[in-house]
Amino acid sequence: MTAIEPVERPAPAGEPLFDRVAFIGIGLIGSSMARAIAKLGLAREIVCSARSQATCDKALELGLVARASTDAASVVADADLVVLCAPVGAYAAIAPVIGPRLRPGAIVTDVGSVKQAVIRDVAPYLPEGVHLVPGHPVAGTEHSGPEAGFAELFENRWCILTPPPGANEAAVDKVAEMWRRFGSNLEFMEASHHDKVLAITSHLPHLIAYTIVGTATDLEEDTKSEVIKFSAGGFRDFTRIAASDPVMWRDVFLNNREAVLEIIQRFNEDLTALQRAIRWGEGDKLEELFTRTRAIRRGVIDAKQA
Amino acid sequence: MTAIEPVERPAPAGEPLFDRVAFIGIGLIGSSMARAIAKLGLAREIVCSARSQATCDKALELGLVARASTDAASVVADADLVVLCAPVGAYAAIAPVIGPRLRPGAIVTDVGSVKQAVIRDVAPYLPEGVHLVPGHPVAGTEHSGPEAGFAELFENRWCILTPPPGANEAAVDKVAEMWRRFGSNLEFMEASHHDKVLAITSHLPHLIAYTIVGTATDLEEDTKSEVIKFSAGGFRDFTRIAASDPVMWRDVFLNNREAVLEIIQRFNEDLTALQRAIRWGEGDKLEELFTRTRAIRRGVIDAKQA
Repeated sequence: MTAIEPVERPAPAGEPLFDRVAFIGIGLIGSSMARAIAKLGLAREIVCSARSQATCDKALELGLVARASTDAASVVADADLVVLCAPVGAYAAIAPVIGPRLRPGAIVTDVGSVKQAVIRDVAPYLPEGVHLVPGHPVAGTEHSGPEAGFAELFENRWCILTPPPGANEAAVDKVAEMWRRFGSNLEFMEASHHDKVLAITSHLPHLIAYTIVGTATDLEEDTKSEVIKFSAGGFRDFTRIAASDPVMWRDVFLNNREAVLEIIQRFNEDLTALQRAIRWGEGDKLEELFTRTRAIRRGVIDAKQA
Repeated sequence: MTAIEPVERPAPAGEPLFDRVAFIGIGLIGSSMARAIAKLGLAREIVCSARSQATCDKALELGLVARASTDAASVVADADLVVLCAPVGAYAAIAPVIGPRLRPGAIVTDVGSVKQAVIRDVAPYLPEGVHLVPGHPVAGTEHSGPEAGFAELFENRWCILTPPPGANEAAVDKVAEMWRRFGSNLEFMEASHHDKVLAITSHLPHLIAYTIVGTATDLEEDTKSEVIKFSAGGFRDFTRIAASDPVMWRDVFLNNREAVLEIIQRFNEDLTALQRAIRWGEGDKLEELFTRTRAIRRGVIDAKQA
């Protein structure tokens, strides 16, 4: 174990970055990170905790970790990197449990889709000399659980780090280097800006997809089966998004309330305008918007995010 | 030329179904049909008309048709199958032009995403002995134009036919047989029911995607470029849908007004309920819905439409 305070600069490429990495929660993202760390040899040992014994067993069975426990405190004790991969709403309960067991010089990071809440819920419980580097890999699939992960999930995807003001530079560098080795592009932002940008690129799309699929589940049985049958007309893309992890997404909306409500409001105004254009047969307004939105698609393709 | 009234029963598999097929409009769907017809040897000759000379030239250059003209009347004269592949809003102008030139026994079909409007706009202009069999292949991509088509587009996709009451059975059979040979599954519906089902499986998803991408285009330039950069969080799927043909979709909304407005209303109520749940921190309501929507995804996967 080499991690002492201050945190050392990242090791050269090819060498391990960490001695022991502890995952708190090991679903799609955590298990993908564990696979990537193992594949790239970035740590000497990987351990995890999960809320259920079944998930612990699964993580061991998949060979993702050397040790797994339902007791989060016991796995973080000797870790120099702790990665929170639980739903964001669970952080407030996890932080006071693991806080006292973290050793000086340890780095705590996470992968949550909201970032202000992490700083709010976790930072107060970290002892002096433990470094918080909140992170968010903008990657995922609609599948959940440790068996759903794969080491290449983060390649060519963005990872956003939102270190709070005054964060330890070496700790930030080490976390950034880990993501670079995973093949990700790095971006640094203030947590509040992150939450605003992600409200539109990720949170609103999920909310809308959940809504529209929910609207369909309320239809009479006959119509519902037809909706499934003819879903290739656009609906199926929404069902994929609306199959994402329910607890994770519940926590995202509850923990990014202001930004999400603000963007729903804008969306609602825009939808009402379109609704009115349809009612009054204003084809030119519809065509103008539908033409304008094509430019954004070209942007997404040009940015290699298609 | 063998087509006389009454229409003959479909030829056995492997034999041509039609003598001359005329496409009015030759974009993604029309050109995919033309490719499939050629590949499967379903017609002796394929011709087309398009509004612009450039599209006619492109169709000839791609080898899709033997003859192309901007004059729709001239290409339908000797056709035993006429396929309307123009935006639905153009049918009302096309029908009176081609009607007088259609020969007895000819079949007129189409591929529009709304079906009541077709019967309303086309049927009155068809002479006695010409058979209208409206159709809608539930298949597509976000790309437009004759170069975007491919013969396999319809394989394992549904094609819905909405023959009006009293339609000629042999004509319906022939059109159905063409779609079967394309690899599609056939479904028969009343036009009004089609328009209601597609309003939710296709029209609302497109409207929502256009709206959300439109909301993003109104953001300040900095944020907009970040929205594109981090679109992998869900937004990019909407940009794909919102890149669909603007004129085609304008016409869909204008021609399925009642069903679309009705489903927007339901969607709005459901979104408002979610918005309220977020505002008041009602996590149980969110989780309940997000869990329920997963079942629909499983249905889509089971129906092999994923």
